[in-house]
Amino acid sequence: MPVNLYDSANEMGKAIRESGEFTGLKRLFDEVNNDPTARETFENFRNLQMQLQQKQMMGQEISEQEVGQAQQMVALVQQHPKISKLMQAEQHLSKVIAELNQIIMKPLEELYGNPDQQK
Amino acid sequence: MPVNLYDSANEMGKAIRESGEFTGLKRLFDEVNNDPTARETFENFRNLQMQLQQKQMMGQEISEQEVGQAQQMVALVQQHPKISKLMQAEQHLSKVIAELNQIIMKPLEELYGNPDQQK
Ligand SMILES: [Ca+2]
Ligand SMILES: [Ca+2]
Repeated sequence: MPVNLYDSANEMGKAIRESGEFTGLKRLFDEVNNDPTARETFENFRNLQMQLQQKQMMGQEISEQEVGQAQQMVALVQQHPKISKLMQAEQHLSKVIAELNQIIMKPLEELYGNPDQQK
Repeated sequence: MPVNLYDSANEMGKAIRESGEFTGLKRLFDEVNNDPTARETFENFRNLQMQLQQKQMMGQEISEQEVGQAQQMVALVQQHPKISKLMQAEQHLSKVIAELNQIIMKPLEELYGNPDQQK
């Protein structure tokens, strides 16, 4: 019997919320946010990252000074134990979610992805 | 007890595959593909659409002739009963999937979306 798609999505959301990947990320996120120095360092890093991404998207040139600043920031956050753990957890969850997405979208991939097999 | 994320994604994919939205789309897709004229018309339309999108993404100008050609194509596929039904079904499923995605990603939305509430 077909399952209701919205019920199924709610279960999937619940599974993510209860997963070790998500609860671990949330704990690390809180640890950074509850440490004022870590929080500010991380926010500065994110802001710079977004600024540079926006410049790139708009085709604006990124100066050598900005590249240097970004590299210093990366080195700084990578050396910070709380922030580096948080960033690793974020990257891991992103990877997991990309994999889940591929699994979920398989029916559409099969419908559109192999036109040669649709004889 | 936490559910395995990959099991949950497999169930979600199965729910999509069995949904009326997907099986209906698949039926319409096959109807178009099994009708040589409809198939060619639809492929020409998709190809033109992709060409114009690529031009836009690369910042190239789209000529008045191309705009006119695209408008004629849209009128043609909208008048074709099989193709217009397929396109409606595609648009509907896209909308449903966007909604499912929002439901699934709610935990992350809550973690990142409301920084003011994270005191
Ligand atoms: Ca917090
Ligand atoms: Ca077919």
